Amino acid sequence: MSEAIPEKYVDLLEKPAFGSLGTLMKDGSPQVTPVWLDYDGHYIRFNSALGRVKDKNVRRDPRVSITVLDPANPYRYLEIRGRVVEITQNGADDHINKLSQKYLGKPVYPFRQPGEVRVTYKIEPEKVSSMG
Amino acid sequence: MSEAIPEKYVDLLEKPAFGSLGTLMKDGSPQVTPVWLDYDGHYIRFNSALGRVKDKNVRRDPRVSITVLDPANPYRYLEIRGRVVEITQNGADDHINKLSQKYLGKPVYPFRQPGEVRVTYKIEPEKVSSMG
Repeated sequence: MSEAIPEKYVDLLEKPAFGSLGTLMKDGSPQVTPVWLDYDGHYIRFNSALGRVKDKNVRRDPRVSITVLDPANPYRYLEIRGRVVEITQNGADDHINKLSQKYLGKPVYPFRQPGEVRVTYKIEPEKVSSMG
Repeated sequence: MSEAIPEKYVDLLEKPAFGSLGTLMKDGSPQVTPVWLDYDGHYIRFNSALGRVKDKNVRRDPRVSITVLDPANPYRYLEIRGRVVEITQNGADDHINKLSQKYLGKPVYPFRQPGEVRVTYKIEPEKVSSMG
Protein backbone atom coordinates (compact mmCIF):
# COMPACT_ATOMS: atom_id res chain seq x y z
CA MET A 1 0.00 0.00 0.00
CA SER A 2 1.54 3.22 -1.15
CA GLU A 3 1.23 6.37 0.93
CA ALA A 4 1.83 9.86 -0.47
CA ILE A 5 4.31 12.32 1.00
CA PRO A 6 2.34 15.20 2.56
CA GLU A 7 2.71 18.33 0.43
CA LYS A 8 3.96 20.40 3.38
CA TYR A 9 6.98 18.11 3.84
CA VAL A 10 8.05 17.72 0.20
CA ASP A 11 10.52 20.61 0.67
CA LEU A 12 12.55 18.30 2.98
CA LEU A 13 13.13 16.02 0.00
CA GLU A 14 14.03 18.90 -2.28
CA LYS A 15 16.56 20.69 -0.13
CA PRO A 16 20.04 19.21 0.38
CA ALA A 17 19.13 17.44 3.62
CA PHE A 18 20.71 14.06 4.28
CA GLY A 19 18.59 10.97 4.72
CA SER A 20 19.31 8.40 7.42
CA LEU A 21 18.61 5.10 5.73
CA GLY A 22 17.79 2.05 7.83
CA THR A 23 18.29 -1.36 6.23
CA LEU A 24 18.50 -4.91 7.57
CA MET A 25 21.69 -6.91 7.97
CA LYS A 26 21.78 -10.63 7.18
CA ASP A 27 20.97 -11.48 10.81
CA GLY A 28 17.97 -9.11 10.75
CA SER A 29 19.62 -6.41 12.85
CA PRO A 30 19.28 -2.77 11.75
CA GLN A 31 21.93 -0.73 9.97
CA VAL A 32 21.69 3.05 9.55
CA THR A 33 23.77 5.10 7.12
CA PRO A 34 23.55 8.63 5.75
CA VAL A 35 22.46 8.94 2.12
CA TRP A 36 21.80 11.54 -0.52
CA LEU A 37 18.27 11.25 -1.85
CA ASP A 38 15.72 12.77 -4.16
CA TYR A 39 12.04 12.42 -4.89
CA ASP A 40 10.42 11.92 -8.28
CA GLY A 41 6.90 12.70 -7.08
CA HIS A 42 6.23 9.08 -6.16
CA TYR A 43 9.43 7.23 -5.23
CA ILE A 44 12.20 8.25 -2.86
CA ARG A 45 15.45 7.50 -4.64
CA PHE A 46 18.96 6.99 -3.30
CA ASN A 47 22.18 5.94 -4.96
CA SER A 48 24.91 3.57 -3.85
CA ALA A 49 27.51 1.30 -5.43
CA LEU A 50 27.31 -2.39 -6.26
CA GLY A 51 28.55 -4.61 -3.41
CA ARG A 52 28.26 -2.09 -0.59
CA VAL A 53 26.63 -3.22 2.65
CA LYS A 54 23.38 -1.37 1.96
CA ASP A 55 23.29 -2.69 -1.61
CA LYS A 56 23.53 -6.25 -0.32
CA ASN A 57 21.05 -5.54 2.47
CA VAL A 58 18.23 -4.21 0.28
CA ARG A 59 18.70 -6.99 -2.30
CA ARG A 60 18.25 -9.53 0.52
CA ASP A 61 15.37 -7.71 2.25
CA PRO A 62 13.83 -4.65 0.59
CA ARG A 63 12.29 -3.19 3.75
CA VAL A 64 13.78 0.19 4.64
CA SER A 65 13.13 3.30 6.67
CA ILE A 66 14.45 6.71 5.82
CA THR A 67 14.39 9.77 8.06
CA VAL A 68 15.05 13.32 6.88
CA LEU A 69 15.56 16.18 9.32
CA ASP A 70 15.11 19.79 8.28
CA PRO A 71 18.59 21.36 8.51
CA ALA A 72 16.88 24.63 9.49
CA ASN A 73 14.97 22.95 12.33
CA PRO A 74 15.87 19.41 13.42
CA TYR A 75 12.59 19.14 15.34
CA ARG A 76 10.83 19.12 11.96
CA TYR A 77 11.29 15.79 10.22
CA LEU A 78 9.85 13.12 8.05
CA GLU A 79 10.12 9.35 8.44
CA ILE A 80 9.25 7.17 5.49
CA ARG A 81 8.95 3.43 5.85
CA GLY A 82 8.58 1.32 2.77
CA ARG A 83 10.38 -1.01 0.47
CA VAL A 84 12.86 -0.85 -2.35
CA VAL A 85 10.81 -1.79 -5.41
CA GLU A 86 13.39 -1.11 -8.11
CA ILE A 87 17.18 -1.49 -8.22
CA THR A 88 18.84 -0.40 -11.43
CA GLN A 89 22.14 0.61 -12.98
CA ASN A 90 20.25 2.33 -15.82
CA GLY A 91 20.64 6.06 -15.42
CA ALA A 92 22.50 5.61 -12.13
CA ASP A 93 25.54 7.61 -13.30
CA ASP A 94 23.31 10.52 -14.30
CA HIS A 95 21.48 10.15 -11.00
CA ILE A 96 24.62 10.38 -8.84
CA ASN A 97 25.69 13.45 -10.80
CA LYS A 98 22.28 15.00 -10.21
CA LEU A 99 22.64 14.29 -6.48
CA SER A 100 26.16 15.73 -6.54
CA GLN A 101 24.69 18.93 -8.00
CA LYS A 102 22.01 18.98 -5.32
CA TYR A 103 24.26 18.29 -2.32
CA LEU A 104 27.65 19.67 -3.37
CA GLY A 105 26.78 22.10 -6.15
CA LYS A 106 29.07 20.03 -8.42
CA PRO A 107 27.67 18.68 -11.69
CA VAL A 108 29.99 15.64 -11.68
CA TYR A 109 30.19 13.36 -8.63
CA PRO A 110 33.74 13.83 -7.35
CA PHE A 111 34.13 10.82 -5.03
CA ARG A 112 33.97 8.09 -7.63
CA GLN A 113 36.34 5.16 -7.08
CA PRO A 114 37.93 3.20 -9.94
CA GLY A 115 35.70 0.31 -11.00
CA GLU A 116 32.75 1.54 -8.95
CA VAL A 117 29.36 0.63 -10.43
CA ARG A 118 26.64 3.08 -9.39
CA VAL A 119 23.14 1.86 -8.60
CA THR A 120 19.83 3.71 -8.13
CA TYR A 121 17.25 2.37 -5.65
CA LYS A 122 13.60 3.42 -5.64
CA ILE A 123 11.66 3.28 -2.40
CA GLU A 124 7.88 2.98 -2.46
CA PRO A 125 6.61 4.86 0.62
CA GLU A 126 4.19 2.72 2.63
CA LYS A 127 3.99 4.57 5.95
CA VAL A 128 4.85 8.22 6.35
CA SER A 129 5.23 9.95 9.72
CA SER A 130 6.12 13.56 10.33
CA MET A 131 6.82 15.89 13.18
CA GLY A 132 7.05 19.64 13.51
CA MET B 1 31.51 -8.38 22.25
CA SER B 2 31.96 -4.77 23.15
CA GLU B 3 33.88 -2.40 20.88
CA ALA B 4 35.24 0.94 22.04
CA ILE B 5 34.43 4.25 20.36
CA PRO B 6 37.61 5.52 18.67
CA GLU B 7 39.00 8.48 20.60
CA LYS B 8 39.00 10.72 17.53
CA TYR B 9 35.22 10.38 17.14
CA VAL B 10 34.18 10.85 20.77
CA ASP B 11 33.61 14.56 20.10
CA LEU B 12 30.64 13.56 17.90
CA LEU B 13 28.96 12.11 20.99
CA GLU B 14 29.76 15.16 23.09
CA LYS B 15 28.56 17.90 20.77
CA PRO B 16 24.82 18.49 20.29
CA ALA B 17 24.58 16.31 17.18
CA PHE B 18 21.44 14.25 16.72
CA GLY B 19 21.58 10.50 16.49
CA SER B 20 19.54 8.56 13.96
CA LEU B 21 18.41 5.48 15.84
CA GLY B 22 17.42 2.35 13.95
CA THR B 23 15.22 -0.15 15.77
CA LEU B 24 13.12 -3.12 14.64
CA MET B 25 9.34 -3.11 14.31
CA LYS B 26 7.31 -6.15 15.34
CA ASP B 27 7.46 -7.53 11.77
CA GLY B 28 11.26 -7.13 11.72
CA SER B 29 11.27 -4.09 9.44
CA PRO B 30 13.51 -1.14 10.32
CA GLN B 31 12.40 2.10 11.93
CA VAL B 32 14.64 5.18 12.11
CA THR B 33 14.01 8.16 14.38
CA PRO B 34 16.12 11.11 15.53
CA VAL B 35 17.28 11.01 19.15
CA TRP B 36 19.26 13.01 21.63
CA LEU B 37 22.11 10.96 23.04
CA ASP B 38 25.13 11.02 25.30
CA TYR B 39 28.05 8.79 26.12
CA ASP B 40 29.22 7.72 29.56
CA GLY B 41 32.58 6.43 28.38
CA HIS B 42 31.20 2.96 27.69
CA TYR B 43 27.50 3.05 26.82
CA ILE B 44 25.66 5.25 24.33
CA ARG B 45 22.54 6.45 26.12
CA PHE B 46 19.31 7.83 24.76
CA ASN B 47 16.04 8.77 26.42
CA SER B 48 12.45 8.15 25.40
CA ALA B 49 9.05 7.72 27.07
CA LEU B 50 7.27 4.55 28.13
CA GLY B 51 4.98 3.17 25.43
CA ARG B 52 6.52 4.98 22.44
CA VAL B 53 7.24 2.94 19.32
CA LYS B 54 10.99 2.81 19.93
CA ASP B 55 10.42 1.88 23.59
CA LYS B 56 8.30 -1.09 22.51
CA ASN B 57 10.72 -1.97 19.73
CA VAL B 58 13.85 -2.22 21.87
CA ARG B 59 12.03 -4.16 24.61
CA ARG B 60 11.00 -6.70 21.97
CA ASP B 61 14.36 -6.82 20.17
CA PRO B 62 17.33 -4.96 21.68
CA ARG B 63 19.33 -4.75 18.46
CA VAL B 64 19.89 -1.16 17.33
CA SER B 65 22.06 0.99 15.12
CA ILE B 66 22.78 4.63 15.73
CA THR B 67 24.42 7.05 13.31
CA VAL B 68 25.77 10.46 14.27
CA LEU B 69 26.83 13.00 11.65
CA ASP B 70 29.15 15.85 12.47
CA PRO B 71 27.04 19.02 12.10
CA ALA B 72 30.22 20.81 10.95
CA ASN B 73 30.90 18.20 8.25
CA PRO B 74 28.24 15.64 7.35
CA TYR B 75 30.83 13.54 5.52
CA ARG B 76 32.36 12.79 8.91
CA TYR B 77 30.22 10.33 10.83
CA LEU B 78 30.06 7.43 13.20
CA GLU B 79 27.81 4.39 13.04
CA ILE B 80 27.44 2.26 16.13
CA ARG B 81 25.67 -1.08 16.01
CA GLY B 82 24.91 -2.86 19.22
CA ARG B 83 22.18 -3.74 21.64
CA VAL B 84 20.23 -2.10 24.39
CA VAL B 85 21.53 -3.80 27.53
CA GLU B 86 19.75 -1.69 30.14
CA ILE B 87 16.35 0.03 30.22
CA THR B 88 15.59 2.03 33.32
CA GLN B 89 13.37 4.75 34.74
CA ASN B 90 15.93 5.35 37.51
CA GLY B 91 17.58 8.69 36.86
CA ALA B 92 15.71 9.09 33.56
CA ASP B 93 14.24 12.48 34.57
CA ASP B 94 17.69 13.79 35.43
CA HIS B 95 18.98 12.29 32.19
CA ILE B 96 16.40 14.02 29.97
CA ASN B 97 17.18 17.31 31.71
CA LYS B 98 20.87 16.77 31.09
CA LEU B 99 20.12 16.14 27.41
CA SER B 100 17.92 19.25 27.31
CA GLN B 101 20.89 21.23 28.60
CA LYS B 102 23.13 19.68 25.96
CA TYR B 103 20.81 20.13 22.97
CA LEU B 104 18.71 23.17 23.89
CA GLY B 105 20.78 24.93 26.53
CA LYS B 106 17.79 24.55 28.88
CA PRO B 107 18.30 22.83 32.26
CA VAL B 108 14.73 21.52 32.39
CA TYR B 109 13.28 19.51 29.49
CA PRO B 110 10.50 21.73 28.11
CA PHE B 111 8.53 19.24 25.98
CA ARG B 112 7.27 17.01 28.73
CA GLN B 113 3.69 15.78 28.33
CA PRO B 114 1.33 15.15 31.29
CA GLY B 115 1.70 11.57 32.56
CA GLU B 116 4.82 10.93 30.48
CA VAL B 117 7.23 8.44 32.06
CA ARG B 118 10.80 8.99 30.93
CA VAL B 119 13.12 6.05 30.28
CA THR B 120 16.89 5.81 29.76
CA TYR B 121 18.31 3.16 27.41
CA LYS B 122 21.95 2.09 27.39
CA ILE B 123 23.47 0.75 24.21
CA GLU B 124 26.48 -1.54 24.34
CA PRO B 125 28.51 -0.79 21.19
CA GLU B 126 29.39 -4.02 19.35
CA LYS B 127 30.47 -2.76 15.94
CA VAL B 128 31.69 0.75 15.28
CA SER B 129 32.24 2.21 11.81
CA SER B 130 33.39 5.69 10.97
CA MET B 131 34.00 7.85 7.96
CA GLY B 132 35.80 11.12 7.43
